[in-house]
Amino acid sequence: MDMLMFQLDKAIHTPLYEQLYAAIKSSIIERKIQTNDKLPSKRKLADFLNISQTTVELAYGQLLAEGYVLSKPRVGYFVEDIDTLAYVDMEEPSQNISPEAVQIAIDFNPGQIDTQSFPFTTWRKYMKDSIDEEKAELLLVGNAQGEYELRQEIANYLYQSRGVQCSPEQIVIGSGTEQLLPMIVQLLENEHTYAIENPGYATTHYIFKQQHQSTVSISVDDDGMDIKELNQSNATIAYVTPSHQFPTGAILSASRRVQLLNWASKNSHHYIIEDDYDSEFRYTGKPIAALQGMDQEGKVIYMSTFSKSLMPSLRIAYFVLPPKLLEIYNEMYNYYTCTVPRIDQHTLARFMQDGHFSKHLNRMRKIYRRKLEKIVTQFKLYGDKIIISGEQAGMHLMIKANHPLNALELSQLALTNSIRIAPIDNYLVTNHSDYNQHLLLGFGGIPESKISSSIDALMHAFGFKKEY
Amino acid sequence: MDMLMFQLDKAIHTPLYEQLYAAIKSSIIERKIQTNDKLPSKRKLADFLNISQTTVELAYGQLLAEGYVLSKPRVGYFVEDIDTLAYVDMEEPSQNISPEAVQIAIDFNPGQIDTQSFPFTTWRKYMKDSIDEEKAELLLVGNAQGEYELRQEIANYLYQSRGVQCSPEQIVIGSGTEQLLPMIVQLLENEHTYAIENPGYATTHYIFKQQHQSTVSISVDDDGMDIKELNQSNATIAYVTPSHQFPTGAILSASRRVQLLNWASKNSHHYIIEDDYDSEFRYTGKPIAALQGMDQEGKVIYMSTFSKSLMPSLRIAYFVLPPKLLEIYNEMYNYYTCTVPRIDQHTLARFMQDGHFSKHLNRMRKIYRRKLEKIVTQFKLYGDKIIISGEQAGMHLMIKANHPLNALELSQLALTNSIRIAPIDNYLVTNHSDYNQHLLLGFGGIPESKISSSIDALMHAFGFKKEY
Repeated sequence: MDMLMFQLDKAIHTPLYEQLYAAIKSSIIERKIQTNDKLPSKRKLADFLNISQTTVELAYGQLLAEGYVLSKPRVGYFVEDIDTLAYVDMEEPSQNISPEAVQIAIDFNPGQIDTQSFPFTTWRKYMKDSIDEEKAELLLVGNAQGEYELRQEIANYLYQSRGVQCSPEQIVIGSGTEQLLPMIVQLLENEHTYAIENPGYATTHYIFKQQHQSTVSISVDDDGMDIKELNQSNATIAYVTPSHQFPTGAILSASRRVQLLNWASKNSHHYIIEDDYDSEFRYTGKPIAALQGMDQEGKVIYMSTFSKSLMPSLRIAYFVLPPKLLEIYNEMYNYYTCTVPRIDQHTLARFMQDGHFSKHLNRMRKIYRRKLEKIVTQFKLYGDKIIISGEQAGMHLMIKANHPLNALELSQLALTNSIRIAPIDNYLVTNHSDYNQHLLLGFGGIPESKISSSIDALMHAFGFKKEY
Repeated sequence: MDMLMFQLDKAIHTPLYEQLYAAIKSSIIERKIQTNDKLPSKRKLADFLNISQTTVELAYGQLLAEGYVLSKPRVGYFVEDIDTLAYVDMEEPSQNISPEAVQIAIDFNPGQIDTQSFPFTTWRKYMKDSIDEEKAELLLVGNAQGEYELRQEIANYLYQSRGVQCSPEQIVIGSGTEQLLPMIVQLLENEHTYAIENPGYATTHYIFKQQHQSTVSISVDDDGMDIKELNQSNATIAYVTPSHQFPTGAILSASRRVQLLNWASKNSHHYIIEDDYDSEFRYTGKPIAALQGMDQEGKVIYMSTFSKSLMPSLRIAYFVLPPKLLEIYNEMYNYYTCTVPRIDQHTLARFMQDGHFSKHLNRMRKIYRRKLEKIVTQFKLYGDKIIISGEQAGMHLMIKANHPLNALELSQLALTNSIRIAPIDNYLVTNHSDYNQHLLLGFGGIPESKISSSIDALMHAFGFKKEY
């Protein structure tokens, strides 16, 4: 056959190669593609579907491994007679493929990073060096809190760049927020009410709920969480993102920081969870140290991750415990094994030790800043149609559209133009009319060279015209 | 100085290099080692302390990084003037070092594997191939249940070697029992009473307790869990290790398997958690398929791990959900991100796909079988002093010592001879006089060449003499 047409969806979680594999497989099972048909060459199919050749290679490899196709070297891939297969799964293996799925051309999802600039060669070298007969001990179970050498590097980094005061003993390494936050909830023992930011990070709300904790949502404005509202609430634990509020991008003001710490001092059961998820990237204004560094009374549990600074799929995050909670941790988790592969921890520790992490951060900060500047410049061409906020740090900002349609309608309008952008509504715990016109624009995953055209495409979708 | 004498403890979790680092550091801080003193060469210190040169290198590297020593190329390491350091942590960084700590020469701890036989070169190659610009998508968040290609490999493996019937869609990949078992508890929703084996795997009991679940302990005999006792209990979930009971090594008999499945059928809330942690290695008798394969009613949650088959520090485990629980999973964990690094998952999937996993298993099975045969042969030389059981599978067995001292006293006696071996008492949930004389002997970590001498050393510690 000449070509295969499939609708692949870059927006859903299922990897593209998996979608492609599933689509071809069901075409074979349903006899839409005949026995002995030759599949298109990898290059041609990749070009046709506008995906990478690796993606096609992965999909073909899977089909080959399962016997749906056979490979004739230097000729190509041919469809097998499926009657000869021992077992054919007649159902589609993935429910995620729908013919209606929209192809996303521009993705303003805030979870993306700039994958093009990752130091593959260096990382590969350090990973290679960690897998070695001489380091056979790394195959065995390591320290429950994570490798000491990695905690030492993290402690140094946190002190120097975030003003966090801690020893490696206070650090617990784990596989991400989903895994670490339930541990923190367990450590806090008593029945608590968690103050969560509104709008805020939905995953954490799910986790508190699943851990059977009650929550109360507290408003966020340009200065971050409203501490007056917190004081009036019955909350005992405050979950905050002070360096770059998610999703509004607000920075918790200095006076509110003091008020928040005072709130925590009021009661021995009060604690603050400071989620410093993307603080590595700050572009303007004086650097503001972490709340943890201001805390004199052991009230702040600091947490952060390498998801933004290195890669989301590495699954290395950590929290820093104040001394009192560290004691509880040591009693409660004495049976525990650290969830992060030891070889990965060793690799990261060495990468940091040799200065590659700070080098990478400095490089990425420049790249993300340039992207941000391009976004700001581009939006300015549209006059007062778009108001930007939260652009001092991180890899996302908030935009307010001066448009007769609301943000939800605008995001749907964008989608029909193959653009994904979420309304702030998606992150609201309780309704809040202040955010009717606001959208969350993540720019980490968009290549620098495509920033301006992506903004233009979004403005075009909204029906806005350049004024300058 | 000529040499440094430290007591390092191979038995505790803290890595040796960390212990060494901490010991030298506190000696420097306490001025036991003077400014400008030259540290012993790496090779000499390694020889002297009977540890690897890498361990010394790691410790020296750490001291260097923190400024406690300076390195003169081709001359050696010299102690710095600590008054010049900006910050000296006067406390010992690790509480785990005690002068009384016993050096463990022979370790029968069941958590060890044979690290010498790990295919470092192949694993390194696959890992290297996974870190590639062409596969930049692997940096981003992947499928929440784990990479589809890895789940496919696991499904194939489980079907072929364990008779487990499942599709990749039913598999959820995670970072180990400590991370996956709480997810299962959440999935089962209702308030349950968990039947746990007595003796059994202590970590799981902690987890059930921490998840606020009630437990009831059920006796184990030569045929595994006593199902009569289970039927008489108020348990609604049965946690079992049918292939090779931990720690007794008993195999759940065929009739009890049927009884256990019947127990599960009795009530719609009843479920079985089948922990198949070391089933890869079976040496004698007909292979017994997993319980899951016999289950017609979707009552078995199957779980297993790569800790024994590859390495404990890889932190890749998984569970297989029956369809009904899969539906609940899909609703409950829609916010979730898989905790296992995607590059590691990709590496393992390719390693399995190309047949290296089965090759490795076959090779290790032979090695572990030879070790086991040597153990049995060696114990026979001591007549009826030792009775062995649980030696049909896995990497540990149970021994019963015909000795005036009980197992606890024997394990203490062993420790004074630098041998670590745990009494079965350590694994008892409630007291059980049947196990007064029983010890758990793990042999995974002991090199084949040292098996016979290690058994002799243990027998010598117990005061037993060869009879043949």
